[in-house]
Amino acid sequence: MTSADAVVALDVGGTGMKCALVDPDGTVLHTERHPTGAERGPAAVVDTVLEVAEGLAGKARADGRTPVAVGIAVPGVVDEARGVAVWSANVGFRDVPLRELAQARLGLPAALGHDVRAGGLAEARIGAGRGAGHVLFVAIGTGIAAAHVVDGAAAVGAHGAAGEIGHILVRPGGPRCGCGRPGCLEAVASASAVGRRYAELAGEPATAAEVAARAAAGEALAGQVWRETVEALADGLASGQALFDVATIVLGGGLAQAGAQLLDPLRAALHERMTFHREPRLVAAALGDEAGCLGAALLALDDLEKR
Amino acid sequence: MTSADAVVALDVGGTGMKCALVDPDGTVLHTERHPTGAERGPAAVVDTVLEVAEGLAGKARADGRTPVAVGIAVPGVVDEARGVAVWSANVGFRDVPLRELAQARLGLPAALGHDVRAGGLAEARIGAGRGAGHVLFVAIGTGIAAAHVVDGAAAVGAHGAAGEIGHILVRPGGPRCGCGRPGCLEAVASASAVGRRYAELAGEPATAAEVAARAAAGEALAGQVWRETVEALADGLASGQALFDVATIVLGGGLAQAGAQLLDPLRAALHERMTFHREPRLVAAALGDEAGCLGAALLALDDLEKR
Repeated sequence: MTSADAVVALDVGGTGMKCALVDPDGTVLHTERHPTGAERGPAAVVDTVLEVAEGLAGKARADGRTPVAVGIAVPGVVDEARGVAVWSANVGFRDVPLRELAQARLGLPAALGHDVRAGGLAEARIGAGRGAGHVLFVAIGTGIAAAHVVDGAAAVGAHGAAGEIGHILVRPGGPRCGCGRPGCLEAVASASAVGRRYAELAGEPATAAEVAARAAAGEALAGQVWRETVEALADGLASGQALFDVATIVLGGGLAQAGAQLLDPLRAALHERMTFHREPRLVAAALGDEAGCLGAALLALDDLEKR
Repeated sequence: MTSADAVVALDVGGTGMKCALVDPDGTVLHTERHPTGAERGPAAVVDTVLEVAEGLAGKARADGRTPVAVGIAVPGVVDEARGVAVWSANVGFRDVPLRELAQARLGLPAALGHDVRAGGLAEARIGAGRGAGHVLFVAIGTGIAAAHVVDGAAAVGAHGAAGEIGHILVRPGGPRCGCGRPGCLEAVASASAVGRRYAELAGEPATAAEVAARAAAGEALAGQVWRETVEALADGLASGQALFDVATIVLGGGLAQAGAQLLDPLRAALHERMTFHREPRLVAAALGDEAGCLGAALLALDDLEKR
């Protein structure tokens, strides 16, 4: 690759797509955002994805760059080896051969990845987990998901479904999760769960950010909800550490934007739970909501190298 | 290697050592068992390990075989990259450079591994998980530990402590675990936990095997303990599957000797917990208590290939 090359990268979410042109050295050259329009159905979303990717390749050429590969990250169950978006609740994909479709449309080698695993890959290689070797990236937003990254590669699993830390059991008999089971980590500690729990106790709705702000301002109920959340997250991370034994846990997603208000008590609660375990560093994500897009670019570059 | 080669393999446990000469094709040529004698202190245990290994190498030569490598598996925290037994509660090891010691004493290349990870490696490659690609081996005995094996390699972790599924939280506020925390899987579903729980309810002691037999014979209390155990194990395995997404879960250790009495209800309870997950096959281990020793031989052979 020459310095005039560029990778086309897209991170397709339930509501929006984060898109970029990325230099092979990891530098972001250009970013774009587009609505996903998931309500139009999966076929229309695929059309939009391909159109936006084509547009980005054109933009690269117009800027004097040669587009060399396409990386696409999508949520849900993703078969990265076959390049198929197997299943996604919020985008509606069912067995969409997105890699092949992108290759055919753009005439460029393409790679398909899972959004959180791609984000974890980027955080582990060029973000907050840089140099750690063994990293667990945990994204806490509407849901909770993770990527276990060892030596720069994210574990995919036998069926493309690895890393679902949101669905480990932490509160048996607890609130029912979106997945149908009671007491999943996601059902008690996601940003949505924080809002729900506050509404339940206070009788009025609030976002997780509002609960955080009220807790910081000394409101007792908000403080209680925040503490419960931290305890549940610490239980989940401690179970993850028992299984993975990572050097660094990187927290991303909306809830992690609470910064020290989340990280400080969570670090203390995690420390309390470490017995035989080797304690991991717990740090905030460094790449913000562009992590998935950057990770898609890294996947595309990895794939190019293997060819 | 020629067909006249042999690998010296030892699996050092808290009470006994399982030892073997193994053909490079995986065939066991000869087995020996020796007491570990952990009460004599770690230095004496190291002496015994080296002496037994030397004896096995001599036995190989006497049988017309050439000993080509030594593989040793030990419990606790094991740094496989450096070949150091970092920490082991039941054998007393603290930072013992066992690989180097074995190499110096026997004049052969040596590999050091973790007992459960070695057992998992063997089950995944030549045992019940053969051909599955992604395998979780779970050993349920006095304690509970696991090995996550992908494409024939067991995950070691950043500090040699990966796979501690016995210490994921399944019963918050539950019985205190040996590790000091309440509600660990090991504290409610290991063979020892089954015995303890029965004693608590029935007022008389019983081993897990006795509880299993009484449950099978229709004793109500034993049946209740068995059901509780199955539920807790299913919770633990479901959390493991959410994170690892394996194709096959292999159950080993003493409790798995209950066979269908454990596997059938556990399979049903696990099935109930699978929502978005891809359901893994749940099977009994195939290599019995020689899995760790066979795995040690495989590690030694892997290491030979890399040299």
